Amino acid sequence: MKKLFSAFALLTIIAIAGCSPDKADGILRLPVPDRAPGQQDMLRYAADPIPVVRVGFIGLGMRGIGGVQRFMNIEGVEIRALCDLEDYNIERARQWMEAHGWPAADVYTGSEDAWQELCRRDDLDLVYICTDWLAHTPMAVYAMQQGKHVAVEVPAAVSIEECWKLVDTSEKTRRHCMMLENCCYDFFELATLNMAQQGLFGEIVHVEGAYIHDLRSLNYNDRLSANSSYMPGEGEGEIPGLSGYWDRWRLQYQSRHEGNPYPTHGLGPVCQILDMHRGDKMNYLVSVSSAPKGMEEYASARFGSDSQEAREGYRMGDMNTTLIKTERGRTIMIQHDVVSPRPYSRIHLVSGTKGFAQKYPAQQIALEPDAHYPLSKPAMDSLLKAYEFPFVTEIRDLAQRVGGHGGMDFIMDYRLVYCLQNGLPLDQDVYDAAEWSALVELTELSATNNGRPVEVPDFTRGAWNNVDGFSFAYAD
Amino acid sequence: MKKLFSAFALLTIIAIAGCSPDKADGILRLPVPDRAPGQQDMLRYAADPIPVVRVGFIGLGMRGIGGVQRFMNIEGVEIRALCDLEDYNIERARQWMEAHGWPAADVYTGSEDAWQELCRRDDLDLVYICTDWLAHTPMAVYAMQQGKHVAVEVPAAVSIEECWKLVDTSEKTRRHCMMLENCCYDFFELATLNMAQQGLFGEIVHVEGAYIHDLRSLNYNDRLSANSSYMPGEGEGEIPGLSGYWDRWRLQYQSRHEGNPYPTHGLGPVCQILDMHRGDKMNYLVSVSSAPKGMEEYASARFGSDSQEAREGYRMGDMNTTLIKTERGRTIMIQHDVVSPRPYSRIHLVSGTKGFAQKYPAQQIALEPDAHYPLSKPAMDSLLKAYEFPFVTEIRDLAQRVGGHGGMDFIMDYRLVYCLQNGLPLDQDVYDAAEWSALVELTELSATNNGRPVEVPDFTRGAWNNVDGFSFAYAD
Repeated sequence: MKKLFSAFALLTIIAIAGCSPDKADGILRLPVPDRAPGQQDMLRYAADPIPVVRVGFIGLGMRGIGGVQRFMNIEGVEIRALCDLEDYNIERARQWMEAHGWPAADVYTGSEDAWQELCRRDDLDLVYICTDWLAHTPMAVYAMQQGKHVAVEVPAAVSIEECWKLVDTSEKTRRHCMMLENCCYDFFELATLNMAQQGLFGEIVHVEGAYIHDLRSLNYNDRLSANSSYMPGEGEGEIPGLSGYWDRWRLQYQSRHEGNPYPTHGLGPVCQILDMHRGDKMNYLVSVSSAPKGMEEYASARFGSDSQEAREGYRMGDMNTTLIKTERGRTIMIQHDVVSPRPYSRIHLVSGTKGFAQKYPAQQIALEPDAHYPLSKPAMDSLLKAYEFPFVTEIRDLAQRVGGHGGMDFIMDYRLVYCLQNGLPLDQDVYDAAEWSALVELTELSATNNGRPVEVPDFTRGAWNNVDGFSFAYAD
Repeated sequence: MKKLFSAFALLTIIAIAGCSPDKADGILRLPVPDRAPGQQDMLRYAADPIPVVRVGFIGLGMRGIGGVQRFMNIEGVEIRALCDLEDYNIERARQWMEAHGWPAADVYTGSEDAWQELCRRDDLDLVYICTDWLAHTPMAVYAMQQGKHVAVEVPAAVSIEECWKLVDTSEKTRRHCMMLENCCYDFFELATLNMAQQGLFGEIVHVEGAYIHDLRSLNYNDRLSANSSYMPGEGEGEIPGLSGYWDRWRLQYQSRHEGNPYPTHGLGPVCQILDMHRGDKMNYLVSVSSAPKGMEEYASARFGSDSQEAREGYRMGDMNTTLIKTERGRTIMIQHDVVSPRPYSRIHLVSGTKGFAQKYPAQQIALEPDAHYPLSKPAMDSLLKAYEFPFVTEIRDLAQRVGGHGGMDFIMDYRLVYCLQNGLPLDQDVYDAAEWSALVELTELSATNNGRPVEVPDFTRGAWNNVDGFSFAYAD
C-alpha cells in the first residue's frame, strides 16, 4: 500500500512538472503549445521569387567560412554582411572575398549583440547562421522576426521549447527556417532516396543513421598552423586563431548533458526516405547511453591524470543509441558517439520488403530475388548512377570542385539558393528542423530515465499526413 | 485528478498481475523465485571426469544430424541412442553411423514420449537436444532430473519461467546445462574475445550483435532433393522428407509472438566479452519492433494473395531492436530480422576506449592511435592469428574439415566433450543459457508495451560478481 501511495505521489509530482505518463502506458509526454488563432502551418510554403539572394553570415568559424566560399560559387548571390566574435575569423572571410574579386561586405563584430544589427538590415533576404549550438534558435527566431529567411546549422534547436519557438516564429512570420542538414545531399543518400521513392526497396520497414566520429582532439584548442586540415585553401602561412571548438563549447555542452546532442546527420536522410510529416510521423522514442569513459581517459593521457581537464567531469555517455517508432510501423535506430576510437560512420541503412542499402562501413545494395549477397561494385555503381537525381548530375562536377565534404555542402547551398530564387518550397522545412532537433532533449529525457519511452511531438499539430510524400521542388 | 486516479488504479492492477513498475522508475519487473534452502549456485561447477562420454541425441533434423556427425569425429565418445519423431531423420543418422563403421545406436521413435525413455537409460552421461524451441526446456529439465548432463539448442528457454526452471533444476541436480551457442566459437569472435581480455580495446563501452538472416523460404516445407543445401554430405540421391522447419514450427511461433525469439547468436559472443555474471550483469532492456510486413508479402507472392498462407496473420515485427544497459554502464544492442531481403549479419561489434572491431558486413579492426581507419587486411589477419586461442590453433584444421558453419560447430562440441572428459567447468553455464534466452520473453514484454524498460533478472541470485571474468578451462 505504501509503495502504491508513493507511486501515486510521484505521479502527481511528475504531472505537475509537466511531463507525465498520463495515459498510464508508460510514455512520457511533454505538453504541446496551442497554435495562436489564425496561425497557419508552413507545409509546402513558397515565398515570392528572389532573383538575387542577399545574404548575411553570422559565425565564420569551422563551418561558416565554408558557407561564404560556397556561396561565392553560386550565381545570383550577394554577400552583404559578415559577423563573428573573433577578428581572425572575420579577417579570413574578408581576405578570401577580396582575393576573389568580390565587393567588400559590411562587418559586424566587437560585441555579443552585433549579430542583431546584422539581422536588422533592410537589404538582406537570408541570414545564414553557423555559430555554437546554444545560439542557433535565439538567432534564427530574431532573424525571422526581422523579416529574413533563415538557414541555421545543426542542430537548429537544443530543447523542445526551442523547437516550438522555431515552428511558431516561422508560422507567424511566414519566413523559411531551414536547418543546414548537409548529409541529406550526399550522393549515396540521394540515390537511395530516389530508389526508395521508386519502390526499389519495397515497403520500407527499418532505417538507421548515426553520427560516429572521434572528435576527442577537437574538444581542446591548439594554435592553428598553416597545414592545419581545418583551414580551407592552401599556402596561407601562419593563421592566427585556434583549432577545435571555440571556447570548448562542444565539450562544455557534453559535460552537462546526456543523450544524443547531435542527431541530425544520421536522422535527416532516413527521415526523408520515410516521408516524415509528409505521410508518416515519429510517435515515440527510447534512448539508452553507455557510461562516459572516453573523455576522462583521453584528457588524462593528454594533460595528465591530475590535470583540470581530467578531473572536470563529463556526463555524456560515450555511445547513445535511440530507437524510434513511427505511426506507420517503421523503426529508426540513431546512434551518437564522438569519443570512441573507431572509423567514422553515419551508417545510413535502409531495409525494406524488396531490398536493402547501407553506406557505412561498406557501401552495399542488395535486391530481390537474391539479396543474400550485395551487388558487385560495378553493378552497384551503375545503379547509383542510374538513380542519380537530374539536379545532382547537373551540378556534380562543380560541387565536387567547390567541395565541402566531397560536394554535399555545395549541393545543399545550391538547392537553398535555387529554391529562394525561384519562389519554391525549400527542401527542408521548419518541421524537419524541429523534428530532427527534438531528439536532443528527448533522448536526454529517456536516457536519464532508464530508457523510458518519450513521445515525439507532432510539430505540424495534426497536419503530418497532409502532404503526399517528400519531394524536391523544381522551377518549370 | 481523474487521470491520476486511473493511473493509480492501473498501477494496482499491474502490481497484482505480478509485473509492476513498483519502484515508480518505469521499469517493469518480473518476480524472482526464492532459492530452495541449501540449494547452491553452479558457478564454475565441475563434475567428476568422464573419460568416455556416452551420449543420446534427441532431434535429428536440421541441426541434430550435424551433431551426430561431429561427435563421430571426437575421441572418447559413444553414441548410444538416437531419438526423433520422423523415421526418415532416424534412418539418415543410422545410415551415416553404419557407413562409417560405428556400432548401431538404440532407436527411440513412434511416440511423442519416446524421448523420455531415452533420458531414463542408465548408460548415458549426456543428452544432446536439437528439437523445436518449445521442447527445449521440458526435455532439458527431465534429462537433468534423470541424472544426465544436458546440451540444448538455442534458445534454451522461451520464457522467464522456463529460464528459472533450467536454473533451479541444474542447481538442484548438479548437472551441467549448456546451451549450444555455436557462434561463440567462430574464429573472429574468439579472437576478439581474446583481444578484449588482453586489453587491446581498452575499457569496453558498447557491443552489438544480431541474427539477421532471410529465412522466409524455410518457413514453408518442400520435398527435399539430393542437391538440397540443407543436407550434409553429398551424393545421397533422393532423400525422403521435407526442407524447412518441421511442422512449420518457426512460422507458427512467429505468428503468435512479438519481440526477438532468437537472440542468442548475437548476444552470446558479446556477453562473454562483457564477463556477464562474471563481473557484470544486465540490468534492464528496452525493445522496439517494426510492424510485420515481409511474411505477408512473401506468402502472397509465393502462394497467391487469397491463399491461406497469405491470410494467416503474422504478429512478429520484421525488425526487432533491443538495447540493454549493464551494471557497469556498458550498452548492448541486439537485433533480429528473419524476413527482410538483405545479406546475413550477426554484426558482432565491440567498441572500447582504445579500439574497435566489427565482423559484419565487413570485418574490420581499428586501434589507437589511428582508429579513424581500420587495419589493412594483412595487418588484421596477422592480428587475428596472433590472438587465436591455442586450443583453436590445435583443432582448426580438423574443425574446418568436419565443418558445421565453417568449423565453429565442431569447436563447440569439441570443447563440450573435452570439459566433460576432464572434469572441468563448461564454457557456457546454465546462467548463460538463462540470461541469453531471457530476451525471448523480455523483448516481447517491452515491444508490446511501447518499448518500456524491463528488468533482466539476476539468475545467479546475487552471485553475478563472484567470478573474476570469463575464461576457458583447461586440463593441467
